[in-house]
Amino acid sequence: MNGLHIFAVVGVGPVQQGDDLVELFLKALEEQGEKVLANDLVVVTSKVVAKSEGRVVSFDGSEAHKLDLIEQESVRVLRRRGSLRITETPHGFINANAGVDLSNTSDGTAVLLPTDPDRSARRFRADLRRVRNVDVAVIVTDTFGRVWREGVTDVAIGSAGIRPILDLRGTHDANGRLLEATEVAIADEIAGAANLVLGKALGTPFAVVRGLDQSFFGEGSVRENIVRSANDDLFR
Amino acid sequence: MNGLHIFAVVGVGPVQQGDDLVELFLKALEEQGEKVLANDLVVVTSKVVAKSEGRVVSFDGSEAHKLDLIEQESVRVLRRRGSLRITETPHGFINANAGVDLSNTSDGTAVLLPTDPDRSARRFRADLRRVRNVDVAVIVTDTFGRVWREGVTDVAIGSAGIRPILDLRGTHDANGRLLEATEVAIADEIAGAANLVLGKALGTPFAVVRGLDQSFFGEGSVRENIVRSANDDLFR
Repeated sequence: MNGLHIFAVVGVGPVQQGDDLVELFLKALEEQGEKVLANDLVVVTSKVVAKSEGRVVSFDGSEAHKLDLIEQESVRVLRRRGSLRITETPHGFINANAGVDLSNTSDGTAVLLPTDPDRSARRFRADLRRVRNVDVAVIVTDTFGRVWREGVTDVAIGSAGIRPILDLRGTHDANGRLLEATEVAIADEIAGAANLVLGKALGTPFAVVRGLDQSFFGEGSVRENIVRSANDDLFR
Repeated sequence: MNGLHIFAVVGVGPVQQGDDLVELFLKALEEQGEKVLANDLVVVTSKVVAKSEGRVVSFDGSEAHKLDLIEQESVRVLRRRGSLRITETPHGFINANAGVDLSNTSDGTAVLLPTDPDRSARRFRADLRRVRNVDVAVIVTDTFGRVWREGVTDVAIGSAGIRPILDLRGTHDANGRLLEATEVAIADEIAGAANLVLGKALGTPFAVVRGLDQSFFGEGSVRENIVRSANDDLFR
């Protein structure tokens, strides 16, 4: 059967600073009888990337401390409502609360976004090539809200080995007409697709996406290709 | 293999007003040796829905006519830049140029958004149940830009048989902690996932998504669950 196949890698335990993510990924993947193939794409959620890179800080659970952390992780606040902040991070992401993850509050910790998620993705890719001699693409994902639509979706915050935006401008449709638009943010579509198999409560920080079109693979990064500069932005 | 499988239905010809979309879908699907199964989800792009419903108007190719059409299809204009308009449609969608599709300009026509894409999805679902006695979910998709990120992604503009937003609030993560957030806009994640197999140039208005979690199926609509009311919106 043609098409895309997306599956979660289950059974990955808690991740600590210094853990080798590729080792954890391969162990869990191979224990479920799978292996990674050339032209697979591996999705890694930002939380385990951040934890392995030591982006965990103590958090006393107070509102004041929460707002401090958000401020530290932001370069700008676009909107405030109650204790919600819509922020711009040093990466150029616009998201809620600077991506500070307080869901570990019971531990007395908060998890920050990885410092350079594109670099994290490149490292995962290089490590996987080194230990399994296979070329995959990698996307690091996080959960963002949207401006005019309810609900959150997962998007790409880092990538390697994939063209984050696929430029279809200048190509022709089935009737030979020149297409309007469109640069498709395939990295974000892949991030969201992977979230459909990851869920939130299963301890599954990795997914494998198999069957992507060859044309998706190539150079680029989220920082260079997806982050919109303030100059091009009608809503900043 | 577990997980999600997504494939395009190829070989669907041009769609005209009055065409039976379910008939076109089944013919193309079955010609490629596939069939539709219970708990599949069928993705249908808005353009063929609009065409089958006669949402096609003549268009003289001029800038003035383009702006007229956008105005007719909008209830409000949020931003203007050159000939780009960021608009609110009668459905409550905020998108570029009120979703007016000018890519058929060489025909002297423009394609508008379906009037009620949730109803279109419900009709497709009911028709498929009637002719094949199978229960599937249906999502009608369109291509939207994003505020702070480059590139477009496909999102759900109509749905039937699926809960567009999955409420994970109050559930627990793998360590038994109460999860922060999050209502996940699975309908939009599915729409984007399907776009990864559809491309723009292949004449493939349908995709099948197989293997979605049972909990995804249920009641709701894009209009009720995903469209954010202006009151809840920090950027309108």
